[in-house]
Amino acid sequence: MLRMSTLLLRTLRDDPADAEVASHKLLVRAGYVRRIAAGIYSWLPLGYITFRNIEKIVREEMDSAGFQEVHFPALLPREPYERTKRWEEYGGSLFRLKDRRGNDMLLGPTHEEMFTLMIKGEFASYKDLPISIYQIQTKYRDEARPRSGIIRGREFVMKDSYSFDIDDDGLAKSYENHRNAYISLFDRLGLKYNIVSAVSGAMGGSRSEEFLAPCSTGEDTYVLCPKCGYAANVEAMVTKVPEYSGEPAPAMKVFDSPNTPTIDSLVELLNANHGGGFEGSHTLKNVLLMADGKAISILVPGDREVDLKRVEANLPGVEELRLFEDEDFKKFPGLVKGYVGPQDAKSQGITVYADPRIVKGSHWITGANIREKHVMYVTHGRDFEVDGFIEAAEVRAGDLCPECATPVVIDRAIEIGHIFQLGRKYAEALDLTVLDKDGKARVVTMGSYGVGVSRAVAAIAEQSHDEIGLIWPREVAPADVHIVATGKDDLPFDTAEKLANDLESKGMRVMLDDRRDASPGVKFKDAELIGNPFIVIVGKALVEGKVELRNRRSGEKVEVALDGAVEEIISVVTAN
Amino acid sequence: MLRMSTLLLRTLRDDPADAEVASHKLLVRAGYVRRIAAGIYSWLPLGYITFRNIEKIVREEMDSAGFQEVHFPALLPREPYERTKRWEEYGGSLFRLKDRRGNDMLLGPTHEEMFTLMIKGEFASYKDLPISIYQIQTKYRDEARPRSGIIRGREFVMKDSYSFDIDDDGLAKSYENHRNAYISLFDRLGLKYNIVSAVSGAMGGSRSEEFLAPCSTGEDTYVLCPKCGYAANVEAMVTKVPEYSGEPAPAMKVFDSPNTPTIDSLVELLNANHGGGFEGSHTLKNVLLMADGKAISILVPGDREVDLKRVEANLPGVEELRLFEDEDFKKFPGLVKGYVGPQDAKSQGITVYADPRIVKGSHWITGANIREKHVMYVTHGRDFEVDGFIEAAEVRAGDLCPECATPVVIDRAIEIGHIFQLGRKYAEALDLTVLDKDGKARVVTMGSYGVGVSRAVAAIAEQSHDEIGLIWPREVAPADVHIVATGKDDLPFDTAEKLANDLESKGMRVMLDDRRDASPGVKFKDAELIGNPFIVIVGKALVEGKVELRNRRSGEKVEVALDGAVEEIISVVTAN
Repeated sequence: MLRMSTLLLRTLRDDPADAEVASHKLLVRAGYVRRIAAGIYSWLPLGYITFRNIEKIVREEMDSAGFQEVHFPALLPREPYERTKRWEEYGGSLFRLKDRRGNDMLLGPTHEEMFTLMIKGEFASYKDLPISIYQIQTKYRDEARPRSGIIRGREFVMKDSYSFDIDDDGLAKSYENHRNAYISLFDRLGLKYNIVSAVSGAMGGSRSEEFLAPCSTGEDTYVLCPKCGYAANVEAMVTKVPEYSGEPAPAMKVFDSPNTPTIDSLVELLNANHGGGFEGSHTLKNVLLMADGKAISILVPGDREVDLKRVEANLPGVEELRLFEDEDFKKFPGLVKGYVGPQDAKSQGITVYADPRIVKGSHWITGANIREKHVMYVTHGRDFEVDGFIEAAEVRAGDLCPECATPVVIDRAIEIGHIFQLGRKYAEALDLTVLDKDGKARVVTMGSYGVGVSRAVAAIAEQSHDEIGLIWPREVAPADVHIVATGKDDLPFDTAEKLANDLESKGMRVMLDDRRDASPGVKFKDAELIGNPFIVIVGKALVEGKVELRNRRSGEKVEVALDGAVEEIISVVTAN
Repeated sequence: MLRMSTLLLRTLRDDPADAEVASHKLLVRAGYVRRIAAGIYSWLPLGYITFRNIEKIVREEMDSAGFQEVHFPALLPREPYERTKRWEEYGGSLFRLKDRRGNDMLLGPTHEEMFTLMIKGEFASYKDLPISIYQIQTKYRDEARPRSGIIRGREFVMKDSYSFDIDDDGLAKSYENHRNAYISLFDRLGLKYNIVSAVSGAMGGSRSEEFLAPCSTGEDTYVLCPKCGYAANVEAMVTKVPEYSGEPAPAMKVFDSPNTPTIDSLVELLNANHGGGFEGSHTLKNVLLMADGKAISILVPGDREVDLKRVEANLPGVEELRLFEDEDFKKFPGLVKGYVGPQDAKSQGITVYADPRIVKGSHWITGANIREKHVMYVTHGRDFEVDGFIEAAEVRAGDLCPECATPVVIDRAIEIGHIFQLGRKYAEALDLTVLDKDGKARVVTMGSYGVGVSRAVAAIAEQSHDEIGLIWPREVAPADVHIVATGKDDLPFDTAEKLANDLESKGMRVMLDDRRDASPGVKFKDAELIGNPFIVIVGKALVEGKVELRNRRSGEKVEVALDGAVEEIISVVTAN
């Protein structure tokens, strides 16, 4: 039993100064967590009980899916991460240190290397596969901007799993098993979530989905179709456009366009000098980028920005992507800054990618590659060609769902899980092979699956609170029932004590506010702030032989006869 | 159910090359742990189940004692450890690192600072005390010599608790509560252990005891009285000597003693030139030390060495202790190296501590402070005085128990727990005070209590194995029953499967060897190596409608009728 009289808990009246999101404010105020350093938190008793409730659910769901639990160190040698190049690639996010002998060590931000090597160390035959193994472990990432309390910390707990299969069909099955396990797991956690495509279908490649918990302060932005349920993160949103069905355009026509540094100023000039009806969407924006030292041009309709995160996600293998700088323009003298068009790009050695809206046959107003001149009727397939299409334009609310053409909404969310067909990257780098039926060595294919366990505490708090405090789903809450004894006499306290014991003896988890020196008001406020799903008040109504049972979420209050209260409370609690 | 056909487990026939102790060899061979780097291990599924079984027992015993669980980060800022001076004092054992902003961080080797600050952050009044809080957490120590597998690792899991009290009486009670909780806990783990004094009673000071698990390869040496059960670590062993009851000695007599660099050569010369019957124990050894730059002389009987660890433990507050070097002798020209006696020590500004055997009135043969001369009849209290007594001489088997004067034995052990009245050191350094009844700020007094949770896996393995494998106590074992199916037909496999399911449905934890491609011999060897407490063989005896039930520890085998086997097995398993 959790007794408020002895519990290590001091609730706070004021929000912590550094807190911006509700979960952070409430978890600190209700005495669940305390900040130790940027992105590094301690758990007080209530917080750790909640965390462990979630951890237990995660473990049970993994075990019942037949995945095997292992555990790796957090302090790791450099060598395996050197072999996969991640020692360098992780950049500033990796905590690196040296041991007393001068060996390079790191604090594991993720354990692909270790999982791969574990299977390599034990298994050798296709008969040993498939296998899925997981751990629930403390991870370390030196985030540039730790924020939102335990949502983006530098030390946090993840459940990470890996599946190992001999072939792609096996991987698809392992992926599906994990997907199903994640669905039961997040359902049990009482989280609202969307399963969101994380890799553009257009680009092909391995399957990857994120479990996103909608939340107005979330860091992740994603697209949702209100009609068919299509969901994708912004990087993966697919643009579907009908084929060009208009008339062929007249021949290209160059026109003067001085002082048109922006699309808006160009449209203004067009409407002033060339008749009305021009919009930004009639113009073509040429955004020049350097991708690993190679020049590329991205074509998008003039009313859209290029979203570099989308470009990056859809140009796999590119390590450094940046906008053209003055130095770069010097290398391509044919490009007239501010007046670039795709007409000569190929002859200049520039790779051209177009947003899918730039369909074959469509014509555009774009730069004439001549200072202070633009050109109209520039037609895709006649006046320029592209090397490929790419999802590069910013996504907007109202864009059409690629599945059912309904205008989509854009929502924010917290990423609570990620499942990913990793393929053979790590197995190849670390030489994980098994012998197949014919005795030939085959590289194993892997899936990677993660759940933010400590983050889930905050994600649930984000989704499940009101202005007065937290409201936990029952299985996650520190207790099923929070009993508050009020009054000056012994009677309510003795009665509450007995009720608490009786409820615990029937398997209920009880928190008892047995403080004699706190006012009823303080006790009610604390109970509401702490957020157990049911509150029982043993006080005034006792003269009528009753206690009050409150539903923390609905606010509903009922009076329950003390005689039979145990059964009545259990029946209400377990019905929820 | 743990199925051998799919379990991530490959047992090894050979001991790992780097393993010296039995637990290390067996835990690797039986597929419980794998080495990642020096003193850093991964847990395979069987190992992690065993670890978690132990963790669960530890947590249950802490909870049932009323201690509250919290959880601190492992990655910590420097500042609190700077305030207690431990950032420096920890020396090479502390893993230090910098974050991306250049802040100094450390990996917590122990969390006194964090516990102290947590209570300081939440509590302010004597009414809030006493409280005991604990965590089960991964700790980091950059051991100079990590060894014995998971017994002395660089990353390991500890349960650490701290008690907070307003006064010494409260601390004594909190200490006793922890001591009792540790007794139930280690009893449940099935460990044989001794509770051993860790601080010499003679020196007073706070109470401190170690829980030592006897084991021939243990790192710790301790003293045990076979009669009364007195137990002390070597540092804390107390020497009790009767008062001097002999005749007063004649006046001091100086004699020539050339070429007597050792006690043996001195005794030889005495027996040759001064009549027979002389022994090393008649001579007095003067060992000169520098303690934080101050010269001290330790007097011990000539047949004993000085044990510097004992001196250190009994000179609290001394940070640097070392033997005299030639440079030091130059500063004390009155000391004649090889011929030192205590007669002039005081006038030379040297502090003299004597082993308790140098009782008042006793006389000794010692150096004359003159080159190549010794002196006899040098009497304590007449010819020299001491500044105090100290437990400094090496402890030997056969020394007398301070409680009952029985000759003690010396044994080796693994330290599995430590309880310690820490006092006000950290509360003072970090300014943890509460207001007492009179509204005055009082420094809180603390107790510190630790259990090596990951180490306990190895300690149990050390105490509980034989030449063919591990033998786990039931509550710690990966499973209660290990069922082995043998044969070529489906019958034994189907029967074993059903038996396993029936046992699991009754709450037994079952491991099932359902491998079709392994020989009976391999399966039996694996079952014995893995060490679940009971093995059931479903094979040959099936034709008679029987299965065989083996007790792994006693080796006892009984045949059990298949009809009723579930009940019979449960009854045998639960009786153990």
